[in-house]
Amino acid sequence: MKKITMNEMPFPAVTRLCTIYELLSRLEQQGTVAISSGELGTRLGVAAHNIRKDVSRLGIAGNIGSGYEVKKLKGLIAGKFGFGEEKKACVVGLGHLGSAIIQRSIFADGEFRIVAGFDSNINKLETIKTNIDLFPAYQITDVVGRKGIQLAIITVPSSNAQEVADRLVDGGIGGIVNFAPVVVKSKKNNVFVKNMDIAGELRILSALVKTAKSFSA
Amino acid sequence: MKKITMNEMPFPAVTRLCTIYELLSRLEQQGTVAISSGELGTRLGVAAHNIRKDVSRLGIAGNIGSGYEVKKLKGLIAGKFGFGEEKKACVVGLGHLGSAIIQRSIFADGEFRIVAGFDSNINKLETIKTNIDLFPAYQITDVVGRKGIQLAIITVPSSNAQEVADRLVDGGIGGIVNFAPVVVKSKKNNVFVKNMDIAGELRILSALVKTAKSFSA
Repeated sequence: MKKITMNEMPFPAVTRLCTIYELLSRLEQQGTVAISSGELGTRLGVAAHNIRKDVSRLGIAGNIGSGYEVKKLKGLIAGKFGFGEEKKACVVGLGHLGSAIIQRSIFADGEFRIVAGFDSNINKLETIKTNIDLFPAYQITDVVGRKGIQLAIITVPSSNAQEVADRLVDGGIGGIVNFAPVVVKSKKNNVFVKNMDIAGELRILSALVKTAKSFSA
Repeated sequence: MKKITMNEMPFPAVTRLCTIYELLSRLEQQGTVAISSGELGTRLGVAAHNIRKDVSRLGIAGNIGSGYEVKKLKGLIAGKFGFGEEKKACVVGLGHLGSAIIQRSIFADGEFRIVAGFDSNINKLETIKTNIDLFPAYQITDVVGRKGIQLAIITVPSSNAQEVADRLVDGGIGGIVNFAPVVVKSKKNNVFVKNMDIAGELRILSALVKTAKSFSA
């Protein structure tokens, strides 16, 4: 008997609905009451019918008349994805980048709270000033399980990143953002990994700049 | 007369070729001599014929017999995108995250070099220990133009991010990585922007976790 994990929605639909959620948050702040699938599509760079299909996955019909109610649609997405509940996150690797991230500690107005930091250098744990609990790296699996931490941010050197990911997965983590400049994979297929490589992004940008052609028309 | 910018390759092809380049770098280090389009496709999660089409954009034929020569294909991608030349980058916003990034200063083995840091707080410029030249934010346009800086990393608060991006674009920047939790747009269409929002990525991961279904089969 094999354990299989599937997602009830295609990944691109999840990503688009998250982008729509952020857009709706901004529109709500600006006092916008309604928006059409066409306008949402234009802002996201996709066709209106894709937006309607994504929204239909939330269990409601396409937009009627003047469009979607901003507040209502935002609430539906939040409900579907559980955005209302605060989620616990941790940071592994307390060098410059990791220390920078734990200083912020609360992300997205309390949607995510950093509740633990880890580093393999025990001396370092004593020198960092923070209110967040810090632990040696060998305790990752134990602490993640005990505190019910759902999300992790990895900022260790490339050589340790996969080992750290494995320990996080053993502890029961749900998702990992990896800043180490190496592709990290989850050994379980129900754990999601986003590799965020600054050098890799700079490389893609420089390739786009190099292949862009300007002309007058 | 209007100035139009087009890219000679579709963006997804540029992104895939950059990913292939990183993969080939690792394979080369491991001593791998050749790889087939099928293997590359499996590793990237796309079909072999997509890989062959991407590679054909470099001006060479598809793989023959045992596959592509790793070293040769890597060189072709580097040549096409100008990866051999060192590129100058700058960081705007010297809080925790920006300071962390300038400490690293050289990315991807010298492919990218941070040559300037900016902050609107002039007192802060005097307290940061670094060999990199630091400037007040009002000099962004001037310094970017004078030093020929091609890429920028924005780590300022959301409220200032768009204004900073506009100044960078005025200075002639080619690409921007934006860490501010707000979508920044370029006012010129030949400047490329990558928005890297940590909270946004955590949100997508938590949505994926929430909609994942495990079952035994």
